[in-house]
Order: sequence, then structure tokens, then C-alpha cells
Amino acid sequence: MELLKEKIEAEGRVLSEAVLKVDSFLNHQIDPVLMQEIGREFAQLFKNEGVTKVLTLESSGIAPSVMTALELKVPVVFARKRKSLTLTDDLITTTVYSFTKQESNEISVSKKYLQKEDRILIIDDFLANGQAALGLVGMVEKAGADIAGIGIVIEKAFQDGGKKLRELGYRVESLAEIKSLSNGKVTFLEKAVEELTK
Amino acid sequence: MELLKEKIEAEGRVLSEAVLKVDSFLNHQIDPVLMQEIGREFAQLFKNEGVTKVLTLESSGIAPSVMTALELKVPVVFARKRKSLTLTDDLITTTVYSFTKQESNEISVSKKYLQKEDRILIIDDFLANGQAALGLVGMVEKAGADIAGIGIVIEKAFQDGGKKLRELGYRVESLAEIKSLSNGKVTFLEKAVEELTK
Repeated sequence: MELLKEKIEAEGRVLSEAVLKVDSFLNHQIDPVLMQEIGREFAQLFKNEGVTKVLTLESSGIAPSVMTALELKVPVVFARKRKSLTLTDDLITTTVYSFTKQESNEISVSKKYLQKEDRILIIDDFLANGQAALGLVGMVEKAGADIAGIGIVIEKAFQDGGKKLRELGYRVESLAEIKSLSNGKVTFLEKAVEELTK
Repeated sequence: MELLKEKIEAEGRVLSEAVLKVDSFLNHQIDPVLMQEIGREFAQLFKNEGVTKVLTLESSGIAPSVMTALELKVPVVFARKRKSLTLTDDLITTTVYSFTKQESNEISVSKKYLQKEDRILIIDDFLANGQAALGLVGMVEKAGADIAGIGIVIEKAFQDGGKKLRELGYRVESLAEIKSLSNGKVTFLEKAVEELTK
């Protein structure tokens, strides 16, 4: 997605060979017009997958998920990182380790909002080692629902999360795939060019 | 806002005289079409206030904020409840006590995204005793920015948060104002009728 790549090039900050900071438009400050375009792109990609619900993880996954769900005319449910006293229902829970934050979080979704009849589109802001996405996949499986696909805003293609998910048979669509963050520079995977030169 | 009140009547669950659970469309599962309508309503209400940015608090404030910001064509920034290792910049922080969750959270925003030239529209999902909104107000004041207004999806008008904020001189617009949750029933403040019968 060109608009997203241009935004990453213009505003993303490479903090290390593994960390890209995009908090000016995705993780802290949010560009709602870009989120709308991202939502339209995911909806276009997954429109024939029979999606009944979008599942994401608070907080940075919420904006792109709501825009995608608006286009697909389905609800969103976001997994919570901590239990709330007002969430008293039965929960589906799993533990996710964040390498970025160096901590484990228990994430949970109310059973009421993940039903076995659902076809779930998982959306998240980043895919690196795949811990968060695998956690969400596990919750959908616990609910007995199907996974329609996995939509990722930014995939760090030099880490193995995407490989793991694709080897499990899931359709993973990433709107920007980063090949490397070496030398303080963002280098994208150029899929179209690779395919043309095959 | 009639559509919102109808949704609260149809799907809201009264857990006690103080707690209304709306996790089927706002706090856990999100109805994106309703969020779009909420965004349009807030944008209409605050369109002449010179808003340069929407400020909210993760996580339930994000969906209505992004939709409002899309209509107003301004960015959103969401205050975080915990510090992230990838947020290394100078932060504006304050402490907010949640009566619902019975805990204090330090909330923070990067100084970079709250500038003294900004006119901030604060959006949140609920207003009860006002702790979260007052925390956000305090952050805007620390940044030296102006407050364009405060938009609340659901105000518990039987608690004193709205009174506190209005007495401080802020324009508070709540899309649904709840007069009481007594007897397991949601009763709305009927402002229009009250004004007609004056």
C-alpha cells in the first residue's frame, strides 16, 4: 500500500535494527484518514472471505480494525490486556509475551463475542515474532470459530511471525512489509518487482 | 442522540445502580456504524470550535475519537495507561483513579503530540465522577494548549463529573445522559422535553 509506505518513510523513526517507531500516525497519535484508507484496503482484500467479525488487541489495533469493520459492515471485538471488573462474563483467555515491552500479558475476550459460527478476520498493527497474532489465533480456535484471514498494517518480514502464520495455513495480508531496518533505514520488501523478475 | 439511546435501551445491561454495561457495542465489542454516527454528531457539535486535535484515553475512547477526528480532518492522540519501552520521549503524565476498576493508573501523552498551539477536543466513552476527563484536562493544561470542548458518549448525570467540568467553564456535550439506573432500568435525562415545558 503506497500511501502507507510513504507515511512510514516520511515519519517512521528507526530506533534500532528491530524497532520502528510509528507513533505519529498509528501507535500513539493516529491519522484517521490513513486509517480509513487502511480499512478500505483490508476490506477489499478480504471481501470474499465471508468475514462476520474483526478481532484485534487493544490499543493500537483498534483504529485500523474499526475502519475495516465499517467497510465490511461487521462488528469489531478487541481483546483486553487486563480483566475489568465490569467484564464479569465467561472469558476466553491466553497469555502473550511482548518482546517490545518485555512482559507477559493475559489477554481475554468475552465468550459471548466469539461464537463458533463466526468467521474472524484478525487485524493488528504490527507483526514481528507473531506472539500477539498467535495469541489471537488461539482464542479463535478455543471458541471453535474459523479464521477468515489475518490483516497486518506493518510486517517486520525479517522476523519470523509471518512465516509461522503462513506455514499454519492462514492467509496473511500485510500492507507494508519491511525487509530490514539496518543502518537506520527502512527497506521494504518489493513483492511486485520480485514477481515481475521471476 | 436517538440512535445511541435506542442502542443503550436494547443492549445495555444495568449491573447495579451505578454500573451500566455496554460492551456489546462500545467497550469490548464495537459497532463501527454507530461509531461513525457518533463521530458525525461530535463533529457537528464542535465544528466551530477550531479543533486541531482529538485527545482520548485508551482503549474504549479510541473508536469514537477516530471517527470524530475523521470528520473534523484532524489527528487523534490517545493517552496511554502504561509507559511503553518504545515511547522514550518526554511525557506529560498524570494519575487517574478509576472507581470502576478500583485502581490508580498513570496516564501519559508524548509532549510532541500536545503543543501549546493546539485546541483540543477531549472525547471519552463514559463520564461518571469525572476522574478520567479531569486527568485529560490536566494534561492539556500542562501542555499549555486550549480545550475546545469535551465530548462524552454516555454521561451518568446522577454522578458529579459533568457538574465539575461545566463549573470549570468547559463545554461538555454528552450524546446520552443517564438520569438513573435504579430498579435495573435506564432512565435518560429528557432535556428537550424539559426545555419545552419551561
